[in-house]
Amino acid sequence: MNPSVSQDVEKPPLSKAEFIAGFHAIGEERYHHKHPFHLLMHEGKLTRGQLQAWALNRYYYQSRIPIKDAAILARSEDPAFRLAWRKRILDHDGDGTNPGGIEKWLRLVEATGLSRDLALRNAGILPATRYAVQAYVDFVTMRSHLEAVASSLTELFSKKLIVLRMDRLREHYPWLSGGLDYFTGRLTQAPEDSDFALACVVAHAHTRAEQDLAHAALRAKCDILWAQLDALYFAYINPGWPPPGAFQPPKES
Amino acid sequence: MNPSVSQDVEKPPLSKAEFIAGFHAIGEERYHHKHPFHLLMHEGKLTRGQLQAWALNRYYYQSRIPIKDAAILARSEDPAFRLAWRKRILDHDGDGTNPGGIEKWLRLVEATGLSRDLALRNAGILPATRYAVQAYVDFVTMRSHLEAVASSLTELFSKKLIVLRMDRLREHYPWLSGGLDYFTGRLTQAPEDSDFALACVVAHAHTRAEQDLAHAALRAKCDILWAQLDALYFAYINPGWPPPGAFQPPKES
Repeated sequence: MNPSVSQDVEKPPLSKAEFIAGFHAIGEERYHHKHPFHLLMHEGKLTRGQLQAWALNRYYYQSRIPIKDAAILARSEDPAFRLAWRKRILDHDGDGTNPGGIEKWLRLVEATGLSRDLALRNAGILPATRYAVQAYVDFVTMRSHLEAVASSLTELFSKKLIVLRMDRLREHYPWLSGGLDYFTGRLTQAPEDSDFALACVVAHAHTRAEQDLAHAALRAKCDILWAQLDALYFAYINPGWPPPGAFQPPKES
Repeated sequence: MNPSVSQDVEKPPLSKAEFIAGFHAIGEERYHHKHPFHLLMHEGKLTRGQLQAWALNRYYYQSRIPIKDAAILARSEDPAFRLAWRKRILDHDGDGTNPGGIEKWLRLVEATGLSRDLALRNAGILPATRYAVQAYVDFVTMRSHLEAVASSLTELFSKKLIVLRMDRLREHYPWLSGGLDYFTGRLTQAPEDSDFALACVVAHAHTRAEQDLAHAALRAKCDILWAQLDALYFAYINPGWPPPGAFQPPKES
């Protein structure tokens, strides 16, 4: 159908170093560390209400991560892959005694002053959040396993963003400091996960066409993260129009 | 799981008039005739570039309508329903001789000054458009058939919007006047379609719980339309930040 695909098949594969550099170039261009919503957050310019909207909407994303990872796990016939990937579900769902990432995110929601019940009911989240998150679950379910794994590679860039964010949240929003356990956990989890996923993608992307699909998968994932922040910015910063039925921050914030 | 569901089952059904009035109340509150993007369009305040972005993104929505309708048709075991619903696919895909709605929308894209090829390739459309449209296809595939049909009831409100839009487009953007055949067709198609769908929903929503689901389906569809305009407004009006990779209007507009 698409003539560019057959042309790509003809191209020689990238070297391992070129292939990996391609992921980093995509991250530099498209990862949400550059999104204006994050820039304002890190400059201390968000109101409590804007941080509440962020925590509430991002909770929906967090709550779908183990579902996304189980979909990826379910599609692998390699027990070693499944064993490694299972860690991600544990990291987010916990073990019944130690809290996982979802419980920690609920504590962040509470630290903003919203109830955990609101988050658990997905009350007032932006429809655009729901659509973008579903696009992620659909992507890992319907594309090739290689693309599904490659879409997780935003974690290559998350540690740097989290280190900065923790520093700036503590500085500018000290009332939020008790709710940052999620990020502490991710500082070690994310690099472990991305190391494994990158090795896996490098090992399985043999042709140039496969390499291009892996790069496109990371672009698609960056779009999914970016779209969530666009929707937050539009609804809660500028012009500041939450759609009908969405969370309305308290007037005082 | 949700206590409100069992409570709803206990409530007596709404009368036919109350049930229908509920759809109109939802439309008044949530249909995209009130969206600021449309208000600016009708006031003649959009640039050519903003109308190009609208036509291009909305083309993606239009292109998925027959897929959505085929999914609804495919789920019905009633030949009379399928016969009536098949008309919608014909209206959009045409009959091979007379152009359907999709071809007419391509002519609108061309009237804005963009190439049909750009639209056919879905080049530069906003990721948020893609996610919202997919949410619509998913909705009619995965929810009950009653909800799928009810989600089409935004057509109850479309004639009034189209009449206004054609008038204002001709007034404010006369260079677009040659591309309005899509709307002319919808003036008669949409009321026929919504009459049939409404009768079908009234006939099949017996309990209050079913009636509530039908109302919720219309709300969900309104959200899907609204989110597409939110994304256009954010990217191309205020603050005017298209995400990485999206269509960039020419500077002169």
